[in-house]
Amino acid sequence: MSGNINVVLGGPSGYYPTDLKNRLQTGGRVIGVDYGAQWLLDNEIIPDMAIGDFDSISECQKYQLKNKVDNCLIYSTHKDYTDGQLGLMKAVELLKQQGTDDLIMIYGATGGRLDHLLSNIFMVLAPDVLPYVEKIRLIDNHNEVIYISEGKHQFYAKQDQNQTYFSVIPLTGVSHLTIAGAKYPLTDFSSEQLQPFISNEFEEDNPIQVQLDKGIIAIIYSKD
Amino acid sequence: MSGNINVVLGGPSGYYPTDLKNRLQTGGRVIGVDYGAQWLLDNEIIPDMAIGDFDSISECQKYQLKNKVDNCLIYSTHKDYTDGQLGLMKAVELLKQQGTDDLIMIYGATGGRLDHLLSNIFMVLAPDVLPYVEKIRLIDNHNEVIYISEGKHQFYAKQDQNQTYFSVIPLTGVSHLTIAGAKYPLTDFSSEQLQPFISNEFEEDNPIQVQLDKGIIAIIYSKD
Repeated sequence: MSGNINVVLGGPSGYYPTDLKNRLQTGGRVIGVDYGAQWLLDNEIIPDMAIGDFDSISECQKYQLKNKVDNCLIYSTHKDYTDGQLGLMKAVELLKQQGTDDLIMIYGATGGRLDHLLSNIFMVLAPDVLPYVEKIRLIDNHNEVIYISEGKHQFYAKQDQNQTYFSVIPLTGVSHLTIAGAKYPLTDFSSEQLQPFISNEFEEDNPIQVQLDKGIIAIIYSKD
Repeated sequence: MSGNINVVLGGPSGYYPTDLKNRLQTGGRVIGVDYGAQWLLDNEIIPDMAIGDFDSISECQKYQLKNKVDNCLIYSTHKDYTDGQLGLMKAVELLKQQGTDDLIMIYGATGGRLDHLLSNIFMVLAPDVLPYVEKIRLIDNHNEVIYISEGKHQFYAKQDQNQTYFSVIPLTGVSHLTIAGAKYPLTDFSSEQLQPFISNEFEEDNPIQVQLDKGIIAIIYSKD
């Protein structure tokens, strides 16, 4: 088994990328989380796995879900993890089995409740997930979030998606952070405080280089 | 001059509280930021001040804005602060002059670009703003964010607004954080890592107590 692992969370579906159905039909496993699983069924996609407390769908929908999805994990609402965290942990388990260069693509992490969004952005810091942080993407109709840890990294503008802005958001303290090749460069920044660097821009077709010695950073590509 | 200082940022207006117009007409000064200023004019509210680079409105709209708003501060797009930061700093200046118990209510901080949202949540940590952090509210149609620093704090459910969930989101390292009186209590938590505590619940009409010795925390009231 190979291909990206797609996790569809239950954020408002208006925030899903408009081509989500196509993205999911091009291969790789699909995990539906809470309302995300219901959305998949409504859109004639049977997920490989459904996870959540399913407090956002009706008993009847829950019954249909259990009938249609072979691997259906229903948790109590009194659980130690959010639905999003459970979905991501399961995706990491599958990724370990695949042992390839595949990615975890998370959809539906935004819109609606701010606390869910913040939890979804920071959930990559969980000890079991952290070793796979650079495999994870969080995607909605305006933004793509990727994560990096220490080392040298290079990124290009996603011009096909009109995502010309990028922001560098430390999720932990960072040391010796440098951004080169961008409209607004940054040299050797260290801080234990979380200071976001917002609305930087690519310079034409040139890549940007982001380098740090310690810390975890979210790079967010955005369009207006 | 007294009353809350209302800052309307340029996030998608679908994320403004549905009763925003009424809220703004009940008194207090209004600052329109970027597209937020245009939205105010479109809704027949003349802001006391308009701030931003106004890159999201047309030249014709900009001309009308300058004609209608006495205090119109137009910045270059190449500036050191985001439009949201400029709006908040101006609101803090006005609050200092008022010297009362009034609040800074920020609307339009969510929806659309994730980098803007994260910048808007964290902008209260700026040195000039931090002393006023407990005066600041960030409000949209699903969420209300308030900020606290060290000390003991007490909160009640906003049952009129059906906001029954609350989350405790450290924006800095925290020491000796305790949450009492809630469905999921927390005792004496300290960490330099940012670990969000999501989807806690009020117990009937009882208040919750949140206490910490050091750090800045966002409390988010949410509804589904």
